[in-house]
Amino acid sequence: MKISVVKNILEANQRIAEENRRRFSESRVLVMNLMSSPGAGKTSLLERTIQELQDEFRVGVIEGDIQSTYDAERIGRTGAPVVQINTGGACHLDSNMIQEALRSLDIGDLDLLFIENVGNLVCPAEFNLGEDFKAMILSVAEGDDKPLKYPLMFHESSVLLINKIDLLPFCDCNPSLIEERAWKINPHLTIFRVSCRTGEGLDRWTDWLRIQMRQQSPK
Amino acid sequence: MKISVVKNILEANQRIAEENRRRFSESRVLVMNLMSSPGAGKTSLLERTIQELQDEFRVGVIEGDIQSTYDAERIGRTGAPVVQINTGGACHLDSNMIQEALRSLDIGDLDLLFIENVGNLVCPAEFNLGEDFKAMILSVAEGDDKPLKYPLMFHESSVLLINKIDLLPFCDCNPSLIEERAWKINPHLTIFRVSCRTGEGLDRWTDWLRIQMRQQSPK
Repeated sequence: MKISVVKNILEANQRIAEENRRRFSESRVLVMNLMSSPGAGKTSLLERTIQELQDEFRVGVIEGDIQSTYDAERIGRTGAPVVQINTGGACHLDSNMIQEALRSLDIGDLDLLFIENVGNLVCPAEFNLGEDFKAMILSVAEGDDKPLKYPLMFHESSVLLINKIDLLPFCDCNPSLIEERAWKINPHLTIFRVSCRTGEGLDRWTDWLRIQMRQQSPK
Repeated sequence: MKISVVKNILEANQRIAEENRRRFSESRVLVMNLMSSPGAGKTSLLERTIQELQDEFRVGVIEGDIQSTYDAERIGRTGAPVVQINTGGACHLDSNMIQEALRSLDIGDLDLLFIENVGNLVCPAEFNLGEDFKAMILSVAEGDDKPLKYPLMFHESSVLLINKIDLLPFCDCNPSLIEERAWKINPHLTIFRVSCRTGEGLDRWTDWLRIQMRQQSPK
């Protein structure tokens, strides 16, 4: 009984995700679903990425949080258009929330749309939103055992950003071990080692985004 | 419809939590439900706490993880009895899982039982397990905005451990701001600033545990 309820929820989510995907594709906007634990650096990555790309591309953001508009205000200061979703308790975004948010955002005007999911290394991985790629951030302060304990998110993601590498001298974390364990779960994972604080390594990430945007047909 | 399903789940959870609470109380064991984001330091805190207390008290652990027995093996090396729960995808422990785990653990032999919840700053806060206290850990690497964005866990917890204070010189995090924001949500929160890496501040936390154990009648 409980299982069938969950299955229905996931099926309904998938149906609306396909509708979102069609709209994104028609608008030729690259859509990235950004996931991580709380405080791994999603908003800091977006601030840095928008600053780097905004002279070349039109970038928008959908911010997901249980409550507060704190992150949307941070993103708003970059000048990028931003819509805040407050889930009111729910621990992940679903495709229906994205469909609602799209009423307030003109995606025809965008080249790149980031969806910042709720900070949670578990549940967001189960819900497709219609994105082109899922990207996850792991902070080295979280330790190198996370692929063992939260494998689904590593399995579902196309990109892993290992963030806060400036803290490596002060943490008991081996980034090579993260990579080895992550690639065992998902050999196709593209991995970047970055520091959103110092900017180290972010050029390879923004280059990757540029290449993906070129795959979209020009508007 | 969806709401009534969720309500039924929470009501069933609460009923079994009360049964657990009765058993814990009869066994005069202090039970702490330990919650945090992934990688905030729950297992490290347990290792340190067990080492500090195990000459005076009998301490046991129930380990909750989506999969793997990595944390249980770490705890096992301290010599403390440990039972691993693998939730198989579920993002939190519930009271029924605890009831099952109690078949494998003789709580009559314990003074203190830690339940290490799944790493998740959202869902575990909604599920009582029958514990005496909920304690949460926040790593300073997660930033000082977390009370704004995950208020329920701060509201439900009795103790907040602000961990990894050895990283404060390298993070943009103001621990006084965490405390101010947390106390606005929950003025009764007992807060400790600690480093499980260096051991700094842990004496006040173990003193607090000693005091709580003395409140339980002697066996």
